[in-house]
Amino acid sequence: MSDSVPDSPATTAASGDGASRRSRGRPGHDADTVLRTAVELFNRQGYDATSIGDLARELGVTKSAIYHHFDSKEALLAAALDEALDGLDRAVARAADHTRGEPAVDRLRATVVEAVRILVAHQSAVTLLLRVRGNSPTEQAALARRRAIDDHLAALVARAVEDGALRQDVPPDVISRLVFGTVNSLVDWYRADGSLPAEQLAATVSSVLFDGLVGEPVGGPRSPR
Amino acid sequence: MSDSVPDSPATTAASGDGASRRSRGRPGHDADTVLRTAVELFNRQGYDATSIGDLARELGVTKSAIYHHFDSKEALLAAALDEALDGLDRAVARAADHTRGEPAVDRLRATVVEAVRILVAHQSAVTLLLRVRGNSPTEQAALARRRAIDDHLAALVARAVEDGALRQDVPPDVISRLVFGTVNSLVDWYRADGSLPAEQLAATVSSVLFDGLVGEPVGGPRSPR
Repeated sequence: MSDSVPDSPATTAASGDGASRRSRGRPGHDADTVLRTAVELFNRQGYDATSIGDLARELGVTKSAIYHHFDSKEALLAAALDEALDGLDRAVARAADHTRGEPAVDRLRATVVEAVRILVAHQSAVTLLLRVRGNSPTEQAALARRRAIDDHLAALVARAVEDGALRQDVPPDVISRLVFGTVNSLVDWYRADGSLPAEQLAATVSSVLFDGLVGEPVGGPRSPR
Repeated sequence: MSDSVPDSPATTAASGDGASRRSRGRPGHDADTVLRTAVELFNRQGYDATSIGDLARELGVTKSAIYHHFDSKEALLAAALDEALDGLDRAVARAADHTRGEPAVDRLRATVVEAVRILVAHQSAVTLLLRVRGNSPTEQAALARRRAIDDHLAALVARAVEDGALRQDVPPDVISRLVFGTVNSLVDWYRADGSLPAEQLAATVSSVLFDGLVGEPVGGPRSPR
């Protein structure tokens, strides 16, 4: 079973954000364009397999033009992972702010909605984050931040199960994994092409996760199975 | 938001199946052990970044001992992708057999259950399949087979929505993506360590997807939100 067929490398190369595409080939690039392009390249061909030389070629600049903005390849990775993690931290904080004093299940739903928004807004950086395996101090630091977010959400899930607001027949840690897994899998298939706006995606994912896919049948209740 | 922290490379190296671990370091290996080890290595450090020399070192054999079983690195990849795809094809066929003449939603549920079983039984090969990007004829052939499975399931989803058995407020293609995404994300977090048997995982994933996470509250109905 699989999700969408990923873009071919050629398509992916052209699918950077507008700024990146517009400026490609020009002699100078700002730090953000360099970072955007680096993240696309890391995602496309793997961080380890990508050199600063590859990035310079992709941008049509010299390597020193890149070192003007970032000290090293690892500094680019760190900036990308911070972008994703700062976003997710903001999502958690915003959800907590908006649902202070409400039941855990509502705080969890709000967190899922905010997390989906961040995933859409920072899809490439989050994609990179989800592939990090802890191969360097930078990656280990990112994994530690990721774990802190996981732990926060796992605690919300456990509390919501305790409250009786989530089903009792599935262990809380499995519920956490399924929530994370469903949300994270969006990076593999969601395309911000306008056919499914981010707000609608966030509401849909939250609703499907919590309320399920089954709808009322057209012709009355279905036979039990 | 993230799933489990992945194993460190050192842990992953030791997490092959029993046969692989027992035989590691011995002079000879059968084709299956070579394939298992290759898949672990491809998953750990990336297919492109892995050479037959790396695999020989990992197995403690000469390169020619590997070429005795497989003509090339691409032949190893093809064998692994076929293992995953043959399994998924079997899952689809078995579900279709067991639910012949039943409503589309029940055929879909059965397919999800069978697909989860295959994912657990062939987790490493399916992990590799899900990372394929179409960079070679072998990968393109695998993507074509994956698409055929996707299309079959998407047709089942569309039919179930038509029947009114799945919610009407989410476009069928989004339902398909969410189903694929949730099922596929299992490869990132499921550990076959006995704490959650495969059968229970399959039933849980299917039930959560279709019926949702919300349970009956302990103190009566929750306030609407």
